[in-house]
Amino acid sequence: MASMWSIMVLLSLILSVNVKVSNGGVTSVYVRSPEPSVDMPLEAFPSPPGFNAPEQVHITQGDQVGRSVIISWVTPIKPNPNFVRYWEKGHHKHMSRAITTTYRYYNYSSGFIHHATIRRLKYDTLYYYELGHGSVTRRFSFKTPPPVGPDVPYTFGVIGDLGQTYDSNQTIEHYVSNPKGQAVLFVGDLSYADHYPFHDSRRWDTWARFIEKSTAYQPWIWTAGNHELDLAPEIEENVPFKPFMHRYHVPYMASQSTSPLWYSIKRASAHIIVLSSYSAYGKYTPQYRWLEGELQRVDRSETPWLIVLLHSPWYNSNNYHYMEGESMRVMFESWFVQSKVDVVFSGHVHSYERSERVSNVQYNITNGLSVPAKDPSAPIYITVGDGGNIEGLANNFTEPQPSYSAFREASFGHAILDIRNRTHAHCTWHRNQDSEPVAADSLWLYNRYYYPEEENTGD
Amino acid sequence: MASMWSIMVLLSLILSVNVKVSNGGVTSVYVRSPEPSVDMPLEAFPSPPGFNAPEQVHITQGDQVGRSVIISWVTPIKPNPNFVRYWEKGHHKHMSRAITTTYRYYNYSSGFIHHATIRRLKYDTLYYYELGHGSVTRRFSFKTPPPVGPDVPYTFGVIGDLGQTYDSNQTIEHYVSNPKGQAVLFVGDLSYADHYPFHDSRRWDTWARFIEKSTAYQPWIWTAGNHELDLAPEIEENVPFKPFMHRYHVPYMASQSTSPLWYSIKRASAHIIVLSSYSAYGKYTPQYRWLEGELQRVDRSETPWLIVLLHSPWYNSNNYHYMEGESMRVMFESWFVQSKVDVVFSGHVHSYERSERVSNVQYNITNGLSVPAKDPSAPIYITVGDGGNIEGLANNFTEPQPSYSAFREASFGHAILDIRNRTHAHCTWHRNQDSEPVAADSLWLYNRYYYPEEENTGD
Repeated sequence: MASMWSIMVLLSLILSVNVKVSNGGVTSVYVRSPEPSVDMPLEAFPSPPGFNAPEQVHITQGDQVGRSVIISWVTPIKPNPNFVRYWEKGHHKHMSRAITTTYRYYNYSSGFIHHATIRRLKYDTLYYYELGHGSVTRRFSFKTPPPVGPDVPYTFGVIGDLGQTYDSNQTIEHYVSNPKGQAVLFVGDLSYADHYPFHDSRRWDTWARFIEKSTAYQPWIWTAGNHELDLAPEIEENVPFKPFMHRYHVPYMASQSTSPLWYSIKRASAHIIVLSSYSAYGKYTPQYRWLEGELQRVDRSETPWLIVLLHSPWYNSNNYHYMEGESMRVMFESWFVQSKVDVVFSGHVHSYERSERVSNVQYNITNGLSVPAKDPSAPIYITVGDGGNIEGLANNFTEPQPSYSAFREASFGHAILDIRNRTHAHCTWHRNQDSEPVAADSLWLYNRYYYPEEENTGD
Repeated sequence: MASMWSIMVLLSLILSVNVKVSNGGVTSVYVRSPEPSVDMPLEAFPSPPGFNAPEQVHITQGDQVGRSVIISWVTPIKPNPNFVRYWEKGHHKHMSRAITTTYRYYNYSSGFIHHATIRRLKYDTLYYYELGHGSVTRRFSFKTPPPVGPDVPYTFGVIGDLGQTYDSNQTIEHYVSNPKGQAVLFVGDLSYADHYPFHDSRRWDTWARFIEKSTAYQPWIWTAGNHELDLAPEIEENVPFKPFMHRYHVPYMASQSTSPLWYSIKRASAHIIVLSSYSAYGKYTPQYRWLEGELQRVDRSETPWLIVLLHSPWYNSNNYHYMEGESMRVMFESWFVQSKVDVVFSGHVHSYERSERVSNVQYNITNGLSVPAKDPSAPIYITVGDGGNIEGLANNFTEPQPSYSAFREASFGHAILDIRNRTHAHCTWHRNQDSEPVAADSLWLYNRYYYPEEENTGD
């Protein structure tokens, strides 16, 4: 698979034309140099020094409004200590005990995976926390968000399909070097452990160590991708999402969800809905019922920005994974339009693409109306499956560029969503070959509820 | 819900026009008299007499080829005896021990549910079996199928959305009075227990007693419908399919499936694939991966007839549940055409409808080709969601009748698929208001692999 991908990427790059513009859509002139993606060795991410030292530290929002944080970590040898100490500067320490879990996957046994939810934090406040004890104590910090409100500015990073290659490392280095990112919207495909024989689960550990430099200090909001399924019937591993769901806990019950694979949070001025491309979404199913109710619960006067995260994009003009999102789009797209979702972030396709505001919701089987059409109530769909993983780039766009596609480029990188107030947010995409301040694509997003005007693309 | 349905049905019947023909499709002239569906009382199906007498007896195929049978029953008070005695006439008795399970659903506790798989049976042989002991012994019988082979004739009943109304009773009375039916293909929606407050689980018991007259004597092949989901977040019942999966076991592992919600069996000259409309079917999901492999494993030289069962129809011209099957169709239809599936049976819509051989697999987003078109490699889609349940008839067809619809009628009934040899099968539909021998719709199906000619509809 790796070699086939590498060859495809090379071929694509050799054959690629520099400028392609059609129907107003832009295919970037930038052509990434044709290097295959290479995983960093397992040895690049050893456990931290010291017996049973806590490792793989990551945090996420722990409730619906941002006053709780789930702190997760692994102790490799023994289950204890299984608590976290945390404090606000100049105040005394609190302690919170974790729930601890382990799992087996084929011939691999996980370490002790701890999840502690710390609650009733102050808004907009710096907290410190400590894991482990004695000489293996490790200390981290995070800042809670401001209270949820309609004009609260906030800056999200958006990263997908990260993996653990040298390119992944570039993406993370770029993101953490940007002081603006306050939380990450992660659109699925974390470790790519399943790329290896027997889904080498050690890669789940190294990945979590690799991203600790970001995940220990700011919340990552998790979406499940296909590489989280970890299905391997040949070794009798048939429980979908087993490693992922043991390792990455999310506050799904706070949004009345019954599964960690779909849920929502509110943070600053954003209501963020996370969906699962790889769970049931047919009518009557749990995810369908939850989303139907959840869209009713969105209050734009409190959270003007309605953002959806899902792994498999609905508007993709790359031959890789072309039309894979159709089945879910057919089910939910009309709801997104009715609810005036501002933006949908996806991953899965290893390139960057930004859509026009389009919808394709007129089709009734007999009328033949099945073409994506401009729609001011529709979201912009942004694909950022370009974190930089072992499968390489998706450098094979459909030609001509379809009218729904506004901008596309096959490079690794990440996006930044910088919400300024209830009407404006600045969305930028940063390719890895540039230094962080240069945005290879940028757009002022206008809020669909408060300012539903047409954006000037390329601004 | 019941009253709304009843009113809708009445209104629909009052407004209905007698003959509607368009594009060659036929809307039946038969207009069913406008009586609402009424459930039989709980008391109509008491437990059989005697302490802890075995009840709710049902059998299904227990392996992939028909040499095993799963015998299931409930003992209401005590878990024992938990075995079945079975024998061929004139031979000594064998014994097989069951696995026994129970479940709770809100304020209901199930009886002891037993599932015994009896194996290595002779083909084409009458077996007797006994459950219980002493004065509460109950005796039943079944006949095993002939060995799987390309010209083995076999007759299936096809029933869906049965429920437990007086109409349901008519359907069952009609079916069991027909000596030809050897096994039932059940296309989902069994008890409609979820129609009642707190999903009154006693209705699962009465339903199983109601259908025992058929299910104890011939295998029913089970498909999950939306009424099997039994989701009730308001009473914290969030495990999909809980009562159904405890009560109805199927031989899914024999077809390399990892879930009882999708699997296959071979029986006589038919390869029958059961799918779940309410599980994940996106690319990479377990059901998707299984179906992809399963279609490769079909051997038409052994089983010429390739039949699919799924609950939510892909080709439906009723306003009830219109387009609900689209999302799954988009995912799998091209596979059905490539594999030359002969016929797809569905339920869900409470009327009868038979499609032309059509497909809608040319769409690529930008080409606008999204119309169902005649396709000799496509299955015929037959909807038989007309078993007769509490929700009443779906008597509100779209007008004009779309070209993909060959015949449709809003009455209760069931279908018979009478396979004669590798080329011909006779498919009939029997409305409840007629005596069994009269077929309200009938068609000679021509096998897609051995005789892919166009059928003469209405023959």
